[in-house]
Amino acid sequence: MDENIGIGLLGLGTVGSGVVKIIQTPNGRNPLVGKLSIKRIAVRDLTKQREASIPQSILTERPDEVIDDPSVQIVIEVMGGIEPARTLILRAIKAGKSVVTANKAVIARHGEEIAIAAKEAGVYVLIEAAVGGGIPIIEPLKQSLGGNKISRVSGIINGTTNYILTRMDKEGADYSDVLKDAQELGYAESDPAADVEGLDAADKIAILSGLAFGGAINRDKIPTKGINSLNNRDVNYAKRLGYVVKLLAISERHSKKQNKNDSLPLSLWVEPTLVPEKHPLSSVNDVNNAILIEGSPIGQVMFYGPGAGSGPTASAVVADILNIAGIQMMGLHSSILDPLLSGSSWRKCHLAEEAEINQKNYLRLIAEDTPGVIGKIGTIFGQRDISIESIVQFDASEEGAEIVVITHKVNKGKLKAALLAISNLSEIKDIASHMGCL
Amino acid sequence: MDENIGIGLLGLGTVGSGVVKIIQTPNGRNPLVGKLSIKRIAVRDLTKQREASIPQSILTERPDEVIDDPSVQIVIEVMGGIEPARTLILRAIKAGKSVVTANKAVIARHGEEIAIAAKEAGVYVLIEAAVGGGIPIIEPLKQSLGGNKISRVSGIINGTTNYILTRMDKEGADYSDVLKDAQELGYAESDPAADVEGLDAADKIAILSGLAFGGAINRDKIPTKGINSLNNRDVNYAKRLGYVVKLLAISERHSKKQNKNDSLPLSLWVEPTLVPEKHPLSSVNDVNNAILIEGSPIGQVMFYGPGAGSGPTASAVVADILNIAGIQMMGLHSSILDPLLSGSSWRKCHLAEEAEINQKNYLRLIAEDTPGVIGKIGTIFGQRDISIESIVQFDASEEGAEIVVITHKVNKGKLKAALLAISNLSEIKDIASHMGCL
Repeated sequence: MDENIGIGLLGLGTVGSGVVKIIQTPNGRNPLVGKLSIKRIAVRDLTKQREASIPQSILTERPDEVIDDPSVQIVIEVMGGIEPARTLILRAIKAGKSVVTANKAVIARHGEEIAIAAKEAGVYVLIEAAVGGGIPIIEPLKQSLGGNKISRVSGIINGTTNYILTRMDKEGADYSDVLKDAQELGYAESDPAADVEGLDAADKIAILSGLAFGGAINRDKIPTKGINSLNNRDVNYAKRLGYVVKLLAISERHSKKQNKNDSLPLSLWVEPTLVPEKHPLSSVNDVNNAILIEGSPIGQVMFYGPGAGSGPTASAVVADILNIAGIQMMGLHSSILDPLLSGSSWRKCHLAEEAEINQKNYLRLIAEDTPGVIGKIGTIFGQRDISIESIVQFDASEEGAEIVVITHKVNKGKLKAALLAISNLSEIKDIASHMGCL
Repeated sequence: MDENIGIGLLGLGTVGSGVVKIIQTPNGRNPLVGKLSIKRIAVRDLTKQREASIPQSILTERPDEVIDDPSVQIVIEVMGGIEPARTLILRAIKAGKSVVTANKAVIARHGEEIAIAAKEAGVYVLIEAAVGGGIPIIEPLKQSLGGNKISRVSGIINGTTNYILTRMDKEGADYSDVLKDAQELGYAESDPAADVEGLDAADKIAILSGLAFGGAINRDKIPTKGINSLNNRDVNYAKRLGYVVKLLAISERHSKKQNKNDSLPLSLWVEPTLVPEKHPLSSVNDVNNAILIEGSPIGQVMFYGPGAGSGPTASAVVADILNIAGIQMMGLHSSILDPLLSGSSWRKCHLAEEAEINQKNYLRLIAEDTPGVIGKIGTIFGQRDISIESIVQFDASEEGAEIVVITHKVNKGKLKAALLAISNLSEIKDIASHMGCL
């Protein structure tokens, strides 16, 4: 059993280089790291200048050569993007090799196809690095929390937007100014759409939800709102009311029973959300991520750490490699997988109607500065049985008065009807913003 | 592979009952829970009234009957205490059965003996429930963080003291009053020594340290200070300076190189510590626990959740059972263990001299209310090359002035010499308190 475990990499960018660095300096790490040996690396451009520690002889521009190399036992996909990543992952599986990938976009969209192929081939596809950077969250969901009936997964799972929101909150700065800064500092891409529009967070909550509840949902149907239209007035008012605005991704067991197909209804969404200052997620700042898991009998546990970056993401990739290597060290040649580590689906889940999402709400209304308007708003909510936590009128300007309403939990359908009635009030000029609230 | 996995319990107290409850209601949990079957339970008193869901026929007053029952494959030790728990764990190992235990006292003291026996017998002894209640921390240290060179493990790992400290901080209450309350509420034992004197936290940091750094240290040599002599003046002054007092347990890689025996020097200690308000550990309140892991390349990750209680602890026990069951489901009958899951030591560690612990310090001095005294104190520190973060004189009373000093990082030996010189100043009446500071 003293053989090395051969590793092949598809991609040698930020994360790939981080993985190589860990494997090449095993001293002080888990001794199993010393058993890993990098055999082959696929790169885009062979002529590019690289660190001296990587011998030119193991590089290739042909990913297939990595997959087909008989000394490669585990294939690490760290090239990103949907294609050719998806095809290569499936190729590696077919070749009987376990795969470690950091590719949330592929897993969120093609996770089921890949899981089925992996099960058939008797190999693992591990994805710790796909969500939460270095934070161990995939493995705890698959293994450590397996005794629990999970009710809710929520979290801050996009570092770029959390960086922007942290600065908007601390400095009172405008979204567009902070975004520009973040781009210059390398915290945001030159095309920031995937981050700021919430798409990256939606990919990740789809993955977490699948593991927490045991079945995939249709990722493209997740109601998703980013921070790109967030007004700093709302960040400011939230602060004055004791809240911090965070981009949250949430998946929760819907209160409705499973339907007759025995499919579990879930509510998933991504949205800028007011988090009370005392809530554990409120103090997660800058590019950090945190994921809160609620279930029975555990209650609440939170996992916090760096959500991105070469080192943390490489740490997660190596964690997966070690898990597979550990099992291989047992000299196991059967194709029966550890059911926890393989983490396959065990039931059907589906998205409940968006109108059935239950949440507290933050609303900012622009109204004429007349005495009766708060009463009228209160009456409309009251008639529809929607409880109000607070109504506050902030400084009136020439545009009118700004009224901020925080509701108690109500389903989106009911709230929509109330908002329609409110917008029909002659005193209301605009429903200027609407966010969720914890 | 569709057989059930037979479970035997030693003990049916709070945690044991929680484990039974999870296993008897598998619906909605990881499907592997449904494969677990409780075969035999050792209890202290057969005649005690119990929940109807537990058939009298599987109960016994003889623990050996549980261990020797051929249908029992995994033995769960949840009786607590050092003996007979230690002997029974060793008996189960000898009988070729994997063991899951929540017993931090046994593992902190006899962990090595047990690990060696387990390795010899080719079985697992898993201990997720021994530290941090329901928080997954043992498994992340053994598996998910294995690619890292850990530099520091620190945390709030005793719920009772954190509850007391939270109330002292929020209410300005006295230690003894809050302790009495905590006892009435069931958060503190009638004999609270193990908690309030820091012994329980020392057990747990010894265990975490062994996993993080790969080698055991002598648990009985860990410098340990509890909260039982904590004065609420200090909690109050800390607050005014922007700190919260928490009982921290810390294990860190010492800056000295490994010695010629290649044993890694570590500094471990347990002590009430000032935590800056912005630090992630500062907002961990009530009976919650949190463990912060620092390492390279991951940076910082934190694990937060309920540190005790029937449900959370049972969740951790079941996590371990599932891990073993998962491997058994692979139909593995070899005695080669998964090196990650078995988590055995891989190097020698030893405690560095206490005088070599480096930390920031909080000091409260009682002095005569004369103008020159702050200058004299500053001079003594300066002469010894100890940097000061702040010196503040708080309200003078008839007893004299109270001077609070916060130093930068300095080793304990150097500080001790400075404190001796300060206590020799004629203006200094007393060094009334001395705590660590992050």
